[in-house]
Amino acid sequence: MFLQKAPKLQVEKWLNTKHNITLESLRGKVVMIVAFQMLCPGCVEFSLPQAKKVQSMFSDEDVVVIGIHTVFEHHEAMKEVSLRAFIDEYQITFPVAIDEAGDNRPLPKTMEAYDMQGTPTIILIDRDGNINTKSFGHIHNLRLGAKIASLVLRKSGEICQNEGDDAISDACNLERCT
Amino acid sequence: MFLQKAPKLQVEKWLNTKHNITLESLRGKVVMIVAFQMLCPGCVEFSLPQAKKVQSMFSDEDVVVIGIHTVFEHHEAMKEVSLRAFIDEYQITFPVAIDEAGDNRPLPKTMEAYDMQGTPTIILIDRDGNINTKSFGHIHNLRLGAKIASLVLRKSGEICQNEGDDAISDACNLERCT
Amino acid sequence: MFLQKAPKLQVEKWLNTKHNITLESLRGKVVMIVAFQMLCPGCVEFSLPQAKKVQSMFSDEDVVVIGIHTVFEHHEAMKEVSLRAFIDEYQITFPVAIDEAGDNRPLPKTMEAYDMQGTPTIILIDRDGNINTKSFGHIHNLRLGAKIASLVLRKSGEICQNEGDDAISDACNLERCT
Amino acid sequence: MFLQKAPKLQVEKWLNTKHNITLESLRGKVVMIVAFQMLCPGCVEFSLPQAKKVQSMFSDEDVVVIGIHTVFEHHEAMKEVSLRAFIDEYQITFPVAIDEAGDNRPLPKTMEAYDMQGTPTIILIDRDGNINTKSFGHIHNLRLGAKIASLVLRKSGEICQNEGDDAISDACNLERCT
Repeated sequence: MFLQKAPKLQVEKWLNTKHNITLESLRGKVVMIVAFQMLCPGCVEFSLPQAKKVQSMFSDEDVVVIGIHTVFEHHEAMKEVSLRAFIDEYQITFPVAIDEAGDNRPLPKTMEAYDMQGTPTIILIDRDGNINTKSFGHIHNLRLGAKIASLVLRKSGEICQNEGDDAISDACNLERCT
Repeated sequence: MFLQKAPKLQVEKWLNTKHNITLESLRGKVVMIVAFQMLCPGCVEFSLPQAKKVQSMFSDEDVVVIGIHTVFEHHEAMKEVSLRAFIDEYQITFPVAIDEAGDNRPLPKTMEAYDMQGTPTIILIDRDGNINTKSFGHIHNLRLGAKIASLVLRKSGEICQNEGDDAISDACNLERCT
Repeated sequence: MFLQKAPKLQVEKWLNTKHNITLESLRGKVVMIVAFQMLCPGCVEFSLPQAKKVQSMFSDEDVVVIGIHTVFEHHEAMKEVSLRAFIDEYQITFPVAIDEAGDNRPLPKTMEAYDMQGTPTIILIDRDGNINTKSFGHIHNLRLGAKIASLVLRKSGEICQNEGDDAISDACNLERCT
Repeated sequence: MFLQKAPKLQVEKWLNTKHNITLESLRGKVVMIVAFQMLCPGCVEFSLPQAKKVQSMFSDEDVVVIGIHTVFEHHEAMKEVSLRAFIDEYQITFPVAIDEAGDNRPLPKTMEAYDMQGTPTIILIDRDGNINTKSFGHIHNLRLGAKIASLVLRKSGEICQNEGDDAISDACNLERCT
């Protein structure tokens, strides 16, 4: 059994929030991170609308949705001014972090720390700050709803045995707690 | 707090199964019942494809999907021979019960026992045989996934406090167990 | 160049119309025939909604939409009483012909006369009663709109040179008149 | 009867084409112009995919598709470098013009010359360079296919009587030629 603490978010700037956010400050809540690029078609068509739906369907007492703009290509095309207009036009109201640029490399720092393979990537973090799910690409709503609920219902401190990489498996293996 | 035991299924005939099914025989598992009519457009477009997806995504150790054909109008149009062809054409592989005709009334017996308002109706039954959810009309996949997961994760014997009629509420109030 | 006169419709019974319809009586108008089975998923999902849209978008001075129920399998499942309920539930308001049963063979007579390969089949007939298009399967709306318009704009008596089987070709070869 | 010559395109820069394009050089062909902004959700979801489909379905001997990036808000967010990345990510292969910035006003020049109300706007120009259709918002594919076909089939020099503003009317009034 292996528990991976979610690496800290390395953020250049926060949008859509008055205060900077740390994962530590969200301890006790389930966190859904949607890593996206504003010019990534799959993010625009699927993952961002899905994240908005999660935000509206679950209580913010239980589940916090955060976007992170992880630009790893076309850097000049997706600067802050463009992202701000995108957020406005697509009516995104959850907090969005601009991932910190990498030192002399195209991948930004949080993207690299989480070893993401591209965008969109969906990350679920449990109430204790551990990574429960990291999925590159689209997750079916039935599956995502089940995963979030399982994390919401788990009490803090419960240990969860993850059975393999269910981001790839098509079956919905709900994590059982012991 | 109120727990309603799921009424028994009153079935004229079972299709897609070798053995007749009773809710008692499924005790210990979560049961999703999709009540439909083969000529109900909303059933065909949304609820039956959704039920097929639930069947494929969740382990049948945990979740059993059952269809019940609750004909309350156009009775002559939706007899067994037509239903069988429908099941074949739409590739439905979960068990389907033909609801028992009412005595001198249009509503069939199981539909009446569950006090359903029409089709589609989605019913979720917990591991102990209690009705957890009864929803007339479409349920969003995020919400349905969350509800099923919450029932899967609940141990048999746990008492669940349902907070109002969440079939109507748009918010996803996950039931908390005590 | 080959012009095929549309074979006459061999109809057991007409629904959704006070008077029986013949193709002769529609000479001078463009006719779209959608051959369907009520239990054919592709017909229900695509072709019947598309035919309803054609009916609503084009003037009935120019374009007449007709359904023909060409049952070639599950005959007992799709009898008139079931079809009538289907038409009611799916709110089909254009005339629907029940294709005449074949003599000792599964294919009904009109289906065989037009040499259809299955359902859905879309047939377009020009103002002079010639078959312009016969397409097994779904036609993209852009393409269907273009085809119908080309027939509407062609004056009766104009000869049209069809360039190959454009029901199969993906390119939209508008028929040029000479 | 009123024929409006399509105003000339006032272009800051052309993308996706080796040579600058003028409407004069396209005389004899039907032209579909899709005026869009890269951060306009309706453009991304409907009109740009539709324009790509028109490009692939109609012969480029008959129909030429052109995009024009008419930025009237969030100007700093949608500069050339961002547009280039957008075109790359969304795999747009038809020529795209960057509309020339207005003199001390937010609306760019071509957008103003055509009196567009916003994005997306679809403009159809006939073989003689006249505006046939100017539609703010989404056009149904059936309708657009019919309109384009009617223009393709009309010989150059034919005069067309437009019956009212069919961009607003829901009925598909095919233009009749005299």
